[in-house]
Amino acid sequence: MSINSFGRLFTVTTWGESHGPALGATVDGCPPGVPLTAEMLQHWLDLRKPGQNKYTTQRREPDAVEILSGVFEGQTTGTPIQLMIRNTDQRSKDYSDIMEKFRPGHADITYWQKYGIRDYRGGGRSSARETAARVAAGGVAREALKMLVPELEITGCMVQMGPHKIDRESWDWDQISQNPFWTPDAQAAEDWAAYLDELRKSGNSVGAVIEVVAKGAPAGLGAPVYGKIDTDIATAMMSINAVKGVEIGAGMAAAELTGEDNADEIFMGNDGKPVYSSNHAGGVLGGISTGQDLVCRFAVKPTSSILKPRQTITKSGQPAEIITKGRHDPCVGIRAVPVGEAMMACVILDHVLLHRGQIGENRGAIG
Amino acid sequence: MSINSFGRLFTVTTWGESHGPALGATVDGCPPGVPLTAEMLQHWLDLRKPGQNKYTTQRREPDAVEILSGVFEGQTTGTPIQLMIRNTDQRSKDYSDIMEKFRPGHADITYWQKYGIRDYRGGGRSSARETAARVAAGGVAREALKMLVPELEITGCMVQMGPHKIDRESWDWDQISQNPFWTPDAQAAEDWAAYLDELRKSGNSVGAVIEVVAKGAPAGLGAPVYGKIDTDIATAMMSINAVKGVEIGAGMAAAELTGEDNADEIFMGNDGKPVYSSNHAGGVLGGISTGQDLVCRFAVKPTSSILKPRQTITKSGQPAEIITKGRHDPCVGIRAVPVGEAMMACVILDHVLLHRGQIGENRGAIG
Amino acid sequence: MSINSFGRLFTVTTWGESHGPALGATVDGCPPGVPLTAEMLQHWLDLRKPGQNKYTTQRREPDAVEILSGVFEGQTTGTPIQLMIRNTDQRSKDYSDIMEKFRPGHADITYWQKYGIRDYRGGGRSSARETAARVAAGGVAREALKMLVPELEITGCMVQMGPHKIDRESWDWDQISQNPFWTPDAQAAEDWAAYLDELRKSGNSVGAVIEVVAKGAPAGLGAPVYGKIDTDIATAMMSINAVKGVEIGAGMAAAELTGEDNADEIFMGNDGKPVYSSNHAGGVLGGISTGQDLVCRFAVKPTSSILKPRQTITKSGQPAEIITKGRHDPCVGIRAVPVGEAMMACVILDHVLLHRGQIGENRGAIG
Amino acid sequence: MSINSFGRLFTVTTWGESHGPALGATVDGCPPGVPLTAEMLQHWLDLRKPGQNKYTTQRREPDAVEILSGVFEGQTTGTPIQLMIRNTDQRSKDYSDIMEKFRPGHADITYWQKYGIRDYRGGGRSSARETAARVAAGGVAREALKMLVPELEITGCMVQMGPHKIDRESWDWDQISQNPFWTPDAQAAEDWAAYLDELRKSGNSVGAVIEVVAKGAPAGLGAPVYGKIDTDIATAMMSINAVKGVEIGAGMAAAELTGEDNADEIFMGNDGKPVYSSNHAGGVLGGISTGQDLVCRFAVKPTSSILKPRQTITKSGQPAEIITKGRHDPCVGIRAVPVGEAMMACVILDHVLLHRGQIGENRGAIG
Repeated sequence: MSINSFGRLFTVTTWGESHGPALGATVDGCPPGVPLTAEMLQHWLDLRKPGQNKYTTQRREPDAVEILSGVFEGQTTGTPIQLMIRNTDQRSKDYSDIMEKFRPGHADITYWQKYGIRDYRGGGRSSARETAARVAAGGVAREALKMLVPELEITGCMVQMGPHKIDRESWDWDQISQNPFWTPDAQAAEDWAAYLDELRKSGNSVGAVIEVVAKGAPAGLGAPVYGKIDTDIATAMMSINAVKGVEIGAGMAAAELTGEDNADEIFMGNDGKPVYSSNHAGGVLGGISTGQDLVCRFAVKPTSSILKPRQTITKSGQPAEIITKGRHDPCVGIRAVPVGEAMMACVILDHVLLHRGQIGENRGAIG
Repeated sequence: MSINSFGRLFTVTTWGESHGPALGATVDGCPPGVPLTAEMLQHWLDLRKPGQNKYTTQRREPDAVEILSGVFEGQTTGTPIQLMIRNTDQRSKDYSDIMEKFRPGHADITYWQKYGIRDYRGGGRSSARETAARVAAGGVAREALKMLVPELEITGCMVQMGPHKIDRESWDWDQISQNPFWTPDAQAAEDWAAYLDELRKSGNSVGAVIEVVAKGAPAGLGAPVYGKIDTDIATAMMSINAVKGVEIGAGMAAAELTGEDNADEIFMGNDGKPVYSSNHAGGVLGGISTGQDLVCRFAVKPTSSILKPRQTITKSGQPAEIITKGRHDPCVGIRAVPVGEAMMACVILDHVLLHRGQIGENRGAIG
Repeated sequence: MSINSFGRLFTVTTWGESHGPALGATVDGCPPGVPLTAEMLQHWLDLRKPGQNKYTTQRREPDAVEILSGVFEGQTTGTPIQLMIRNTDQRSKDYSDIMEKFRPGHADITYWQKYGIRDYRGGGRSSARETAARVAAGGVAREALKMLVPELEITGCMVQMGPHKIDRESWDWDQISQNPFWTPDAQAAEDWAAYLDELRKSGNSVGAVIEVVAKGAPAGLGAPVYGKIDTDIATAMMSINAVKGVEIGAGMAAAELTGEDNADEIFMGNDGKPVYSSNHAGGVLGGISTGQDLVCRFAVKPTSSILKPRQTITKSGQPAEIITKGRHDPCVGIRAVPVGEAMMACVILDHVLLHRGQIGENRGAIG
Repeated sequence: MSINSFGRLFTVTTWGESHGPALGATVDGCPPGVPLTAEMLQHWLDLRKPGQNKYTTQRREPDAVEILSGVFEGQTTGTPIQLMIRNTDQRSKDYSDIMEKFRPGHADITYWQKYGIRDYRGGGRSSARETAARVAAGGVAREALKMLVPELEITGCMVQMGPHKIDRESWDWDQISQNPFWTPDAQAAEDWAAYLDELRKSGNSVGAVIEVVAKGAPAGLGAPVYGKIDTDIATAMMSINAVKGVEIGAGMAAAELTGEDNADEIFMGNDGKPVYSSNHAGGVLGGISTGQDLVCRFAVKPTSSILKPRQTITKSGQPAEIITKGRHDPCVGIRAVPVGEAMMACVILDHVLLHRGQIGENRGAIG
């Protein structure tokens, strides 16, 4: 399978470099008959689009997506959907310094060592611009899911910026779209604004934690061992640029729990479906969804392209100091929120199709 | 691709249930000419084997592995290697209670909902016994790696049990094999022994954090986007039973760092290879290995099979209380250490082959 | 994906050598709830079993299949099904001569060149014994298909032995199980018996053409371009040992037809389904099944292990003459009939699941 | 794996419809450092391009390929290569009649039944225009092969048109590029011209047989069972539009041979490599290349879009007569020649990488 592909039945292959002519996603395996237009996808791309406020890179990309195939008279045909986004604001002059020097914390050095050639302009294939293609593909997945699992709702948000975590008691879903950080905690949004402003001015950057929640996913998605839905969610998130950790449900903190505390107790709900006393499991038991919220979190490291001088070497092995000018995100985690949502959509759709393929409908009734 | 398979070129498919006749792994894509005997694999299986001390399940399984194919006159032939482990100590009577009741925190309920049939004896396919097959397959990977990357060394250890973390200042690699918890901190081993004893007696269980480090992996392994070596490591670890979180390098804590702190500075080493001031990256930049230690951690949740009574429901939807008697691990994380090592070996071998396939040798010299 | 695996959702990985301890198939992706016992599979294995009459190898193998996993209380659980067949009649002494000499027309030389090691006993992995594993896996597919497409009927037969073709006017389905050659033409069976007897006595062998027909496959199976059901059927058949050509419908003879003659005209049937004036297409248009009979043929070359002396070389590059004694099939095509049926079953089940996964039900009504 | 993808390490995913905005190929896994320009690819596309003489469709498409990613400063970077061909001459008015009626012998009816929606303009995804993307991808494979196997030469030609076969005694490789039919037999070219002229005038079409030969492929490519290089060649060819049969070496005629006649005898060549007395095997034994010419043939059925009236039905199930006006190939096999070559290049490159990945270099010396 292509090393740039993701998914078993709903397969997404992204392609393209930051400063090449275009980038995009080849989306295969989408069910036919899904209403789809470029506008539907543009909606999600606009959320990720850079240059919208002072907290994201000032590169100005319209990120206008074109659908080149797989859609006829406004509906998917079941054949591959090619999504293309032209690169327009490329200003390669900004990047001349990094032709020879490797940025610490950046893929410059490993791409060079491996391939002996790299498109150094804007990070080439390693640029976070690649995630635009994921968001577009995720948009396709969302439309297909509207048809297949209409009650599904996927929401991403930021729950930590640098050392500052949100207060979970103040969680307000409606807040998420009301602030530039996609955070459900209004107070945090205010505090982070000041914090990030200062960081940005000092030419520094910072990491973040994103949480993505899928409500309404049916029980039964996933498979044992290497087809676990939580594994696939973790894979999806870890494959996003700059992600260094992924958690499902209680996540790393599960290590601290006793079996008594961790085991979500089961009761019969009024609608005849099981309900649970808690959700340490993050909606997954044995790799298969329980019907509870699917909950994952991932940590995004700080952008390595900063104005602070750092020690490095050149291609010829000489020591050097590097400052990365250019237009970078002080907290790239902000723009990772729609990316995380998109990946969640892709994983869920893939598992919906996979489940339907092997099983048809859930076979084990309760009650 | 099979939902029970892992890897692109070095492909492992595990099969088997806890209380079926046997379980095992079908290992494909192994290079030919690798010396391999059942004894070599048995070595690793013995480390994972239950019943070795009071901290692991008292089930007595010899876990004797047989090589059924792919080896001729003591060497791999390049054809599929079938590894089979007979189940011997099955005592299914222990499990009669869980035929009807779903254990909270366990895959009982999701398997039932999805498949409408499940081998309830010992958890069937969802049992941690499946990991024996991984350890056997990892043993094959290790032998192949000896030939291909002789300097590689993979070591797993426990760095946290319940809320108790090790003191990283006391890290001693030689300690790891000296205590039943595979921990590099001698003091922690002592403290945990007392802690776990008490938990075990009270019929409870607890989680843990495992760290796996690979020293000596060459630079250049991995690929951008969906073929990242850190993504594949995360996938490998997250697919292990009971794992709820995975970290690479700084992991979730990367969120707290500034760009200045996070970026590992680069210098030229005496041997003409780059060296780094630190390893927040966990040995991976842009999905490709740097040549530093590959470092990952994963959190294992506590066993859900405990003696503490928990509320649940039956298949017919009736409320019930459940106590899981039987032979269970108070801290299943202990036995996850060799499993994590095995998965790391599989991922690295797969990427060594993949790299050789696409690239041959690293193409970009430095200096 | 494993180079010893076949299929997308219903995945079969075969393993094992002719004279190793065992061989078998790891079958993944089977729907749950399919009634399955070893006896059901044994039925098909017995048809392929050697030593049943003088026209097949006199090796005596019970080919007794064991189900090691994936079945509980007589039903598939949806988890991997491990099928194992122990090798019993191994008499490796027969094969000592071929340790050093390469048999012309046999994989001896290429295995050696590629791997530098080969299990020369009985051809090792290149032996036609591998097809026993396919027949077992095909048996699983058949049982699943009984549940999913009950009207499906798959029948293989021999339509040519050496230069002698059957008379298609004499086609009688009931004849197929009445003669040792699985041929629908009673007269051909008689003629071939005499012909093959003579060949066998002279230590020679001969090729054959097998036809496999699937009646009752629904319209809509398959997908464009690289997921065509006819491509997958061709792949399946071409992967069988000794197969050198594959045809769908009119096959190679399609080259001779004009567009006017080739285009099967379409009419509306009494049951509201389209009917066709002919079936040059072999039941497939654009890679998707029409609902007509799926028809494929494949040519099996003659066994290369013969008593006739042939010129060859040794491993050290010396010229040599070789006669292959031992127990070989004068017309290995005979035993390929159940193998072709098994592969057809695997392909159809895979496409039934794939279709259900992406599409659900056929979406385009006619009339 | 995507149902529109082909190949394990060198992976080609084609996308696009006949009359959509564009079509193309996403090519992943190409080695880095391969010199590549659009002009190199255009060379091969121009050979397949329609409208070059009266024997191919008069649709005028420049088929100009753009490289959108994966190439930097004239060399491949090892990341996905996106190849796009804009559709320009779309005249959809020609196709209005087939909105409602299904063309006999065409994918119209199966696409409709399966998907319930189809881009009827020019056959949409089922159009032979898709093969332009394969030719472009094959061009990439050829450039990579120049680097990896410089002595490799891939040549396709037509060996049969309708019932008229070439005289193999008259085979002249230099003739192939000298006539519009890519045939090595000058006399056949002349005869076929007259024959096809008449067919074309009568509004009919005819099938053909194409042969593709790869000289200079090293021994050792391929793998047993489901990774056979001959199986992959057969898969590649069978996946081309309108192909109904595929042969390797002796092909279907292998059925007629005795073991004595079929077994290519082996001798030691002057250069220390084995040579063979004949090549019934088509360069493959046990799925692994021998170093002889790789030889395959495939039969292309006649175009179903003809001026001859044929009986069919409409979407509403009514009987109808259909004549397909428009611009069609009287012998679509002609344009299949460069397509067959392209597929052969893709298969060989994939196996070169796969072999290098698992094995490195051939391990078994002879002599």
